[in-house]
Amino acid sequence: MNHEIGVLVVLFVVFVAAQIGAEIAQRLKMPGVVGEIAAGCIIGPSVLGWVEITARLEVIAEIGAIILLFAVGLETRLDDLKKVGRSATAVGVLGVLLPFVLGGLWGHYSGFATPKAMFVATAFVATSAGITARVLQEIGVLDRIESRVIMGAAVIDDILAMLLLGVVTAVQGGGEINVPHLLFVLFQAVGFVVLIAVAGGKIMRRSSNLLEAPINPRSPLTLSLALCLGLAAAAAYIGLAAIIGAFLAGMVLAETRQREVLEQQLKPIEALMVPFFFVVTGANIKLTELANVEALTTLAVITLLAIVSKLVGCGLGAWSMGARSALIVGVGMVPRGEVGIIIASLGRQAEVISDSLFAIIIAMSLLTSVVAPPALTALFTRAPKAVPAADPSVPN
Amino acid sequence: MNHEIGVLVVLFVVFVAAQIGAEIAQRLKMPGVVGEIAAGCIIGPSVLGWVEITARLEVIAEIGAIILLFAVGLETRLDDLKKVGRSATAVGVLGVLLPFVLGGLWGHYSGFATPKAMFVATAFVATSAGITARVLQEIGVLDRIESRVIMGAAVIDDILAMLLLGVVTAVQGGGEINVPHLLFVLFQAVGFVVLIAVAGGKIMRRSSNLLEAPINPRSPLTLSLALCLGLAAAAAYIGLAAIIGAFLAGMVLAETRQREVLEQQLKPIEALMVPFFFVVTGANIKLTELANVEALTTLAVITLLAIVSKLVGCGLGAWSMGARSALIVGVGMVPRGEVGIIIASLGRQAEVISDSLFAIIIAMSLLTSVVAPPALTALFTRAPKAVPAADPSVPN
Repeated sequence: MNHEIGVLVVLFVVFVAAQIGAEIAQRLKMPGVVGEIAAGCIIGPSVLGWVEITARLEVIAEIGAIILLFAVGLETRLDDLKKVGRSATAVGVLGVLLPFVLGGLWGHYSGFATPKAMFVATAFVATSAGITARVLQEIGVLDRIESRVIMGAAVIDDILAMLLLGVVTAVQGGGEINVPHLLFVLFQAVGFVVLIAVAGGKIMRRSSNLLEAPINPRSPLTLSLALCLGLAAAAAYIGLAAIIGAFLAGMVLAETRQREVLEQQLKPIEALMVPFFFVVTGANIKLTELANVEALTTLAVITLLAIVSKLVGCGLGAWSMGARSALIVGVGMVPRGEVGIIIASLGRQAEVISDSLFAIIIAMSLLTSVVAPPALTALFTRAPKAVPAADPSVPN
Repeated sequence: MNHEIGVLVVLFVVFVAAQIGAEIAQRLKMPGVVGEIAAGCIIGPSVLGWVEITARLEVIAEIGAIILLFAVGLETRLDDLKKVGRSATAVGVLGVLLPFVLGGLWGHYSGFATPKAMFVATAFVATSAGITARVLQEIGVLDRIESRVIMGAAVIDDILAMLLLGVVTAVQGGGEINVPHLLFVLFQAVGFVVLIAVAGGKIMRRSSNLLEAPINPRSPLTLSLALCLGLAAAAAYIGLAAIIGAFLAGMVLAETRQREVLEQQLKPIEALMVPFFFVVTGANIKLTELANVEALTTLAVITLLAIVSKLVGCGLGAWSMGARSALIVGVGMVPRGEVGIIIASLGRQAEVISDSLFAIIIAMSLLTSVVAPPALTALFTRAPKAVPAADPSVPN
């Protein structure tokens, strides 16, 4: 029985630590995920040593990451994009391009091989739309044009980040890059994403009824979860990250008429599973890796680079909206979060990223997520205020 | 990456097999759980050998069992009992006593040591109210007095089964029984259950607001899940089964005003996690253990004993309602299911129950669950029909 007790106590400690961390962070007006990762760092080997990362805990954390990206995909609606089309596309594309190029250059000049530099650059890319959306919702400006552009650009951003991650993970392990192999990998990754997003989306729009076919009363959800697990396994099988498959499954299902029900039903599952991912991520941070001047300098440089590259990239994309709006959009796109953290975790598992770089990238993600919300609030509340709209359908 | 792919493929195969099994069973008018266990048996080592039971899969199955018993607890309302008080109490108590005594005697005469015989007897006890409730709901007789007595008795039945399981698990490992130790264990098990059920229930009724204290938007659910994991770990720590703690957590929360929200939020989590428990249970059945005359004879004897003991015990308890109603109540209490299967799994893990006996007990649980629904439907539809009531709040 001792063995069973051990597992249960670990699950309990991890889950409670996540709740306490999230609660403290939120009361300090920071995103909950910051608190969950900090809690993991504290109960992990780095500080208290209460929790050891076992294979059992890791599989639960991985399911958490898959569920999280599935939910992000489910909130990624191609319709959001059409409404603000041109500006959002420019913001999304430039907001990915500039951080990727600058991150890659930094990696190159730090002496990393090209595949590793590309991996690091990918962790620079992904905006956490969830954090920004929550801030926009709290201050009641979701109906403003800047907010719509941000949410639309976040869709492009997510898709491009997944595409980049697909290419970059597939390139790893080949050591140096050879062009025919890279082209093949690029073709395969893009093919997988485009095939599923386009064909899957079309099938779902036409035949949402398929999801209701089983007589199981929980059928739309169970079929959707099966699709999520299936595409995650398929993505991993062809050498992409599993979360890409989960994200695509969500994106495809976002086109069905059961989308809102699914989003609602996914929230309790997220509440149970996702904290395990963030706490395990925090527990994997070796604080000692940050406790020297070199690491802290690198952290400062990377964080600055991450902020400036998004601000400038997205600001340029939104320039036609006027300087102030461009600034708002740029700041709104600064927070990295879930996706960047997952990418860093993947890199650590695949041993592309060292413990030190892992700790630095997580810290950078957290810093951008902590810095952006107050700046955004200040920019919006000093600007002429529009009629606040309470839209309960927005992701928190 | 190969390792990660393996885990994901297993999760996908297990989940999809469960859905297909449940769908086929339900279309054949059998409970979904029968199909999930059969699916596990087919994809497991016994037949196709697609899935191996690893530690990682087992921890997910265990979380599934904990979530399931948490949900059963949440549906266990002391109020249901008060309405039909005396009859339900008599039905519940006699319906536990007779199967336990007859099961224990059978075990004794089969030559088992007393602790083992008690364990087997406990697997005889627990009625699966969920299966009966679904049948009653489908034929629209939930408002009939017999239905109310069945649902009330199921509450008593669940509580007594958990109490018995507590005593019986704690007695294991001591080899033969010594009276002072048994009394201590009895006291500890009863103390834990009564303390949490009574004191916890009181605290919850008075201070439901506590669940709303965190600013986390998912707070009633997250605190409840923390309580569930915490009491599961606590129960395991003092030598009881973890599911007893989960059940008590649910029962305590059933007294809060957030009960219905929690029940709704738990359904998606059940949809994801519980199938893993049943498929793993099925995969653990060694079909070869059933493929001989002796095992099949034992199965026939045990199944008959299980049916007759419930029918007579519960029928006696309901005798004051008239012979026909007593028969209906007796038949309604026959299905074993989740709880009996979990008890058998615990026994197998603790090596109290042999592979052969495990296969037999699972088969008995399934048989009683398959036999009772058509009998119940026949009895009700031939009796004078009452006004059908559609009560969506009933557990499925």
